Amino acid sequence: MDADLNEFINSLKNLMYEGLVESRNGKLYLTEAGRKEREKYNLEIYDIRCSDCEGRGIVEDPFGILKEYKNIASQRPKPTADYDQGYIKEEDVMRRIAFIYERGDLEDAEIIVIGDDDLISLGMALTGLPKRIVVLEIDDRLIKFINENAKKYGLPVEARKFDVRNDIDEDLRRNFDVFITDPVETIEGITLFLSRAASGLKGEGSAGYFGLTHLEASLKKWQEIERRLLSMNFVITDMLRDFNVYPMSNNLELAAEDYIVYREIAKITNNTRIDADFYRSTLIRIEAVGDIKPLVSGSVELKEEIYVDNESLVTAMATRRRK
Amino acid sequence: MDADLNEFINSLKNLMYEGLVESRNGKLYLTEAGRKEREKYNLEIYDIRCSDCEGRGIVEDPFGILKEYKNIASQRPKPTADYDQGYIKEEDVMRRIAFIYERGDLEDAEIIVIGDDDLISLGMALTGLPKRIVVLEIDDRLIKFINENAKKYGLPVEARKFDVRNDIDEDLRRNFDVFITDPVETIEGITLFLSRAASGLKGEGSAGYFGLTHLEASLKKWQEIERRLLSMNFVITDMLRDFNVYPMSNNLELAAEDYIVYREIAKITNNTRIDADFYRSTLIRIEAVGDIKPLVSGSVELKEEIYVDNESLVTAMATRRRK
Repeated sequence: MDADLNEFINSLKNLMYEGLVESRNGKLYLTEAGRKEREKYNLEIYDIRCSDCEGRGIVEDPFGILKEYKNIASQRPKPTADYDQGYIKEEDVMRRIAFIYERGDLEDAEIIVIGDDDLISLGMALTGLPKRIVVLEIDDRLIKFINENAKKYGLPVEARKFDVRNDIDEDLRRNFDVFITDPVETIEGITLFLSRAASGLKGEGSAGYFGLTHLEASLKKWQEIERRLLSMNFVITDMLRDFNVYPMSNNLELAAEDYIVYREIAKITNNTRIDADFYRSTLIRIEAVGDIKPLVSGSVELKEEIYVDNESLVTAMATRRRK
Repeated sequence: MDADLNEFINSLKNLMYEGLVESRNGKLYLTEAGRKEREKYNLEIYDIRCSDCEGRGIVEDPFGILKEYKNIASQRPKPTADYDQGYIKEEDVMRRIAFIYERGDLEDAEIIVIGDDDLISLGMALTGLPKRIVVLEIDDRLIKFINENAKKYGLPVEARKFDVRNDIDEDLRRNFDVFITDPVETIEGITLFLSRAASGLKGEGSAGYFGLTHLEASLKKWQEIERRLLSMNFVITDMLRDFNVYPMSNNLELAAEDYIVYREIAKITNNTRIDADFYRSTLIRIEAVGDIKPLVSGSVELKEEIYVDNESLVTAMATRRRK
C-alpha cells in the first residue's frame, strides 16, 4: 500500500527470488508456493467502488460542458517529455473543477494555474464562474493554444511565459484566491513550485490544489512535504486518493520504453507494453490560515535535484533529454 | 467554507445586521437587498455528487453484511451525552470499513478501536477478514453489548474498560496494525486520544483512522493537529471530507435543545427543531513512517480543557452534565 516504485520493484524482485511469483509470457503470476502462501492469510477481493462515478463520488459532467471541453482539448499540442508533461483524462478534469467549485473556490474567483498541460484553465472558464484565470507556462505551444482559445470563446483566461526558476511576475503576487499546479515530485522541486504558487495568493483563506503521487514520492517524502506546507502556514483540508488518472493511451507520445520503471519491469517480465493507466495522483487541497510564508523566493539555479531524485522513475526521462 | 460554528454564527449575525438575511417562521431567507447582493457575484448551484453512492465513491454494502450489521446495531444501547456519544449511520460504517479494507488495513489485521459507539468492531468482524479486534470503552453498557454479540456470532472481538486518562493496558501496547477512534476535538483531548491510540500500534507501516469535524475544530486547530501528527512520526495519507454523517433522527437522545449551537441559532430564528444531518466529519488516515512517538504517556488529570474549548458548541453539553 502506497509503496513508491522503488519499493514496488524491490518487493516484486523479492517475491520472485522466494519463488512466490513468476513471469510467464510477459505477465506475472503466483506460483504454486505463492498460492499456498496466500491461503495462509485471510485475503478476499471485493470491489468497493461505485461504478457510476468511477469511484470518485462526483459525476463526470456536472456543468454540462464536457463535450465542449473535449472538443477544444482534442486540438491540444501533444504532450512532451521535455517539460514533464502528461495530461489527466477529460472527465477527471471536470471532476477536479467540480470539487474546486464545491469548496467555494471557483465562483467569482481569481485563479492562478502554474503549468497547464491539462487545460484546466479553459475547462474552468467554460463553466462561466471564475472571474479571472492566469496561466503560467513554460511551453510556448500551450501559451499560444490557451490564448487563442480564450479569445475564440471569449473566456477570461490569459497565459504567460513562466520559468519556475524565477519569481512570478510582480503584478501577479498576492493577487489570487486559488492556485492549481501539478508539481514535480522531488522535495526541492515541489518546494519551488508550491512557493511560486503560494506567492500568488492573497493570504488567509486562499486555497491551493495540487497532485501528488505515491509512485514517485515515498511516504517519508510526503511527510516532509506536509511539514513544509504547514510551515508555509497552510492547513491540509482534503486528500483525494487516485483522483487524477493519466490515461496511457493519450500520453503515449511519452514513449513507454523510456520510462525507467518500464526498463526495470521489462528486465523481470520481458514485457514493455503498457496496458494499464498506472499513473495516478492524489488531489490535495490546502488553505492558508494566516500570512503565507513561501519557503523560496528570488531566482534559483536550475539544478538537477529540482527535477530528479532517486524516486523519479517515471518522469526522470524528461530531464535526461533536457540535458 | 470550513467555518467552525463560532465563525458560522458570527457570519450569520453580521448578514442579519447588514439586512441581507432575515428570519421568518423559524427559517432564514435572503432579503431583497440580499438577493441584489447575490446577483453581483457569479453564483450558481450545481449538484456535483453521485447519487448512486451518496457522493462517497464507495458502495453502501460491499461485503453483503449490511443487513446483519443493522440487525445487531438495532439493539445497541442508546447513545448518551455523558460520554460524548453519537453514532454514524450504518451505511457509512460499511463504507468506512470498505475504505479500510481497500487500504490493506483490514485483512489479517490486528485492530484496536478506542471508543466504539459506532460498533465498527462488530461490523469489521462480520466481514471475516480481521485477525483480532480489541475495543477500549468507558461505557459498561457498550462493553457488555459488544462482548455478548462477539460471543453470540463467534467474532474475534474483545471489549475492555478504558479511561483515556490512563495508558492502555500493557499487553496491548505496540501490538496492533491499525487504530480507529473518533476523538474529542479539543487540542488537549485529541492529543490524548491519538497518543493512547498510537501507543497501541506496532510501528512503521501501522495506520490510524479518525474523524475530525470543521464544526468544532477551526482550520487553525486542524493545522495544530496536523503538526502534532507529523511530530508523532505519522504521515497523513487520506482526508475524506464529510465521509461520516451523524443522523439526527438516530441520535435524538442527545436532546437538541441542550446543544449550545442550537441555543445560539434559536436566539436568531426562534427555532430549535433539527431537520438536517448537520454533524459530519472528515475521515483521516495516517500511517507511521518510522518509530512512533506518542506525545502523551502516563496518567493525566481529567481537566475541563480535555473535553471543552471555545469551539465545542455541540459536544460541550456532555461535560456540563458530567460536572
